[in-house]
Amino acid sequence: TGYFHTLRCEIETALDAASQFGTGCPERLREAVRYSLLAPGKRLRPVLTLAACGLFDADRSNAMPAACAVEMIHCYSLIHDDLPAMDNDDLRRGIPTCHKKFDEATAILAGDALLTGAFEMLDGRFCKELAAAAGACNLIGGQMDDIYSHKQKTGIGFLEHIHQRKTGALIRLALKLGGHIAGASDIHLDILDRYGQYFGLAFQITDDLLDVLGDESAAGKRLRKDAAAGKLTYPRLLGIDGAKKAAAQTIADAEKTLDGLDVRRQTQPLRLLYDLVHQLADRIY
Amino acid sequence: TGYFHTLRCEIETALDAASQFGTGCPERLREAVRYSLLAPGKRLRPVLTLAACGLFDADRSNAMPAACAVEMIHCYSLIHDDLPAMDNDDLRRGIPTCHKKFDEATAILAGDALLTGAFEMLDGRFCKELAAAAGACNLIGGQMDDIYSHKQKTGIGFLEHIHQRKTGALIRLALKLGGHIAGASDIHLDILDRYGQYFGLAFQITDDLLDVLGDESAAGKRLRKDAAAGKLTYPRLLGIDGAKKAAAQTIADAEKTLDGLDVRRQTQPLRLLYDLVHQLADRIY
Repeated sequence: TGYFHTLRCEIETALDAASQFGTGCPERLREAVRYSLLAPGKRLRPVLTLAACGLFDADRSNAMPAACAVEMIHCYSLIHDDLPAMDNDDLRRGIPTCHKKFDEATAILAGDALLTGAFEMLDGRFCKELAAAAGACNLIGGQMDDIYSHKQKTGIGFLEHIHQRKTGALIRLALKLGGHIAGASDIHLDILDRYGQYFGLAFQITDDLLDVLGDESAAGKRLRKDAAAGKLTYPRLLGIDGAKKAAAQTIADAEKTLDGLDVRRQTQPLRLLYDLVHQLADRIY
Repeated sequence: TGYFHTLRCEIETALDAASQFGTGCPERLREAVRYSLLAPGKRLRPVLTLAACGLFDADRSNAMPAACAVEMIHCYSLIHDDLPAMDNDDLRRGIPTCHKKFDEATAILAGDALLTGAFEMLDGRFCKELAAAAGACNLIGGQMDDIYSHKQKTGIGFLEHIHQRKTGALIRLALKLGGHIAGASDIHLDILDRYGQYFGLAFQITDDLLDVLGDESAAGKRLRKDAAAGKLTYPRLLGIDGAKKAAAQTIADAEKTLDGLDVRRQTQPLRLLYDLVHQLADRIY
């Protein structure tokens, strides 16, 4: 949609400015950070932040630092996850991963710089929440369990526990920060949070399906890696049809939570939240 | 001194509590974080924070979260710097480095968890300052330039530029946070900042000298690595005697700035600041 495109353009501009850094930053480090951060991406998380802010008729530019911080955290996590010692990926967003384009030391430091930069960007009031969502009990813990998931007790409960932390927590926070900055009520924040839970789950199931069914050139990254690595995934536990059904149900659940938002219907931000979760279904059919 | 010992014990207790994490943290990740964070260390940075706070008759427990945050940043930077792709060290604080004891993926994530955890620990008011001191223009940028320093233009100016960012910025912030939390005046904060500048420089020169002259078992880490890696160091640029003279001068400069503190003389915190910079000299003679 045009609104989605507008938000993405605003986000790209803000990320560009956020990654200039000052004179103390070595040129190679700046290049590596900007190479990864400004590579074409969906900007899903910052779009969610801005859309959530826009739902409540607030000036969405107030939420831009938070939107950038969330995207910087996401980007750092991709750079570190792609490292040889972790998922060992050589392609991301259609281009070589950071350590392939530069080198491992530079990629580690570029990830560190993005992680640290997110907290320089964000209003101090929200730093504890971002640190919690990105920390050992959420994003990092989820990634740790994901790496070792081939050795772990299998089961849908443990798989959900991984993704609630690895992708869910940051998606939920992205939405919540937007609502919070717009001054949303606790009831509205709770609806955003539940939407985020379903959204994150639907996102992960479709991502797992994409790894099995998708096209590498369209995805811009290597696929068929989960099975090779023996990773716990939804298709592995539920079968392809079962995973498709679970995705459809979760997408319906996400849509339903939005009905609870008594904001003016047909606003662009609200339509976008419906559209985004629908687009997940489009990826797998 | 007894006061130094007291502070260190308080810090160790607080670091132990700060690294328990919640139920979402995988056991192996928690173990790796605690292995590195709780290994015997001088606790120099958090001691500086508490001593700076204590200078102004404030309750130093108010500065403990900031002290822990600073030590967590320091510890993360050691874990990542020790990685094979960076300095490739296998010994730290007398025990195997994190990636040797666990594995590289775990060490990368343990570092990430400590970096993120520092911002969960710290009062939101100070997050921007910590992120700046630890970020691309300071700690990370200094490490980047240090790694590549064998390829860079040599010279004392560039060497100082590396260390002002790599070690200086966090040491200065450690002192400043302690003063700030105690409600110190701008004049006092400025004195702490200048002390921190000299302290950081003296620390680095003595560390470089230690790499040449020191005893590995006493240092608890591999030595003679700088020359092998072709790194830019003070002994390389100034010779051993020249570096010793520079250290002595910088230590004298650091002491002199403390004279500007019109706090009651002979307080334990003030004596500790004199002692700490003196102990640097003891390391090299």
